[in-house]
Amino acid sequence: MQERTSVNNPQIKAIGKLQQKKYREESGYYLIEGFHLVEEALKASVKYREILATEAALSRLAQLGLAYDEGKLIKISQSVASHLSSTKNSQDIFMTVKINMTVKINRPKHFAFSYGKWVLLDDLADPGNVGTIIRTADAAGFDGVILSNKTVDLYNPKVQRSMQGSQFHLNLIKADLPDAIASLKAADIPVYASLLDPAAKQLGDFAPVAQVALIIGNEAHGVSPEIEALADEKLYIPIKGRAESLNAAVAAGIMIYHFS
Amino acid sequence: MQERTSVNNPQIKAIGKLQQKKYREESGYYLIEGFHLVEEALKASVKYREILATEAALSRLAQLGLAYDEGKLIKISQSVASHLSSTKNSQDIFMTVKINMTVKINRPKHFAFSYGKWVLLDDLADPGNVGTIIRTADAAGFDGVILSNKTVDLYNPKVQRSMQGSQFHLNLIKADLPDAIASLKAADIPVYASLLDPAAKQLGDFAPVAQVALIIGNEAHGVSPEIEALADEKLYIPIKGRAESLNAAVAAGIMIYHFS
Repeated sequence: MQERTSVNNPQIKAIGKLQQKKYREESGYYLIEGFHLVEEALKASVKYREILATEAALSRLAQLGLAYDEGKLIKISQSVASHLSSTKNSQDIFMTVKINMTVKINRPKHFAFSYGKWVLLDDLADPGNVGTIIRTADAAGFDGVILSNKTVDLYNPKVQRSMQGSQFHLNLIKADLPDAIASLKAADIPVYASLLDPAAKQLGDFAPVAQVALIIGNEAHGVSPEIEALADEKLYIPIKGRAESLNAAVAAGIMIYHFS
Repeated sequence: MQERTSVNNPQIKAIGKLQQKKYREESGYYLIEGFHLVEEALKASVKYREILATEAALSRLAQLGLAYDEGKLIKISQSVASHLSSTKNSQDIFMTVKINMTVKINRPKHFAFSYGKWVLLDDLADPGNVGTIIRTADAAGFDGVILSNKTVDLYNPKVQRSMQGSQFHLNLIKADLPDAIASLKAADIPVYASLLDPAAKQLGDFAPVAQVALIIGNEAHGVSPEIEALADEKLYIPIKGRAESLNAAVAAGIMIYHFS
């Protein structure tokens, strides 16, 4: 087994840089951390380049009874583990996973929706919200989440932390939203935009549906006017008290479960 | 008008320390920041000790047409404003607000529930979750939120940011949860505990109710067994996909809106 004990080792330096979007895009890999995520990734049979772990973490991994490629294991020192970690309570295990969000709907020949329940994120900026919404869509049994090109990067470490492994359970697609909406409509999937507008149709008035696409807007600006214009219906979660609005991930959760 | 231009001024130093729980408890005041919160506080006629703002922020405040006590205004320099701020995009306005969470249900003679819809937080640890749940309870027109003694401090700056002023709109009570539950039951308010247990009754099977108390558990450990035992019903939000659980604030939002 290979061993890496120095944070100045070129391979370790390159892996540490995967915290930055630029280097993730260059290499086509992102870094996950902790036993829960590594376990989810192995169960999902994702493509990966290496598993890095301290001696103690390697022993624990061996006891989990999961199938993995021994040739991809790298034993690291505690200082290398601390260098790679982005959390306070590191579990000293890391994995470089191939980015698989390659389906682009702006080439419709290569992708078409056929059926299902989808969430569309229109330029969401908060990594915690994006990760939490994907986790909620997973919990509700939705088919996938479509991220607009300006939505915060899916492989941002904060998105990863709040997603809790849901990227291994459902379809995640980066796309121009107008193209995605056209594909959804072509498949007869109704597209609803969530608005903070009491004149829109109240959530409670929507009957259960077998398939649906829900558009969630940016935290500060809501759904953009050009996307709103493409929606089949506009939907409003009633504000009965005095808060001005709901948190985007909470609003998404209420809608997702209403239609789940 | 008084003026403070140095971060070493004893009054400014004392106000800066309100970021820490210890000093909030000693003084009985907490610090809010930004025009939205100051406006909400003034509209709610809360008790406050001082409003601190730069010259530009004072001009903007004067244009808002709100009633405030001129004698409590303090003009601060840009360096003092930067010192007091806990955000990247400071609006250079601050207010020291009296902590009013003084009702303790462990002295039942002094407090009794009569009616309404309540959320109970059982030792929640994440400030963003606590603030977001309070904001959601406000949006849904709930009467208040009861925080267990070990729940993260309400006046933590991160709780403040995610609460977005909802502390001025609904009842917030710190209490021993068993005492609070006894008071709720005495008022015939049904108490439901949210569990991650498919054997519990599914959320969709609960009919609308006129009054309810919903217990939300700690992010890692759920509702504690002694609190669970006091609940009238156990409630489960179905997990239909492969996520292991929902984020606590999202789960709370789904339940709150189900019963709103």
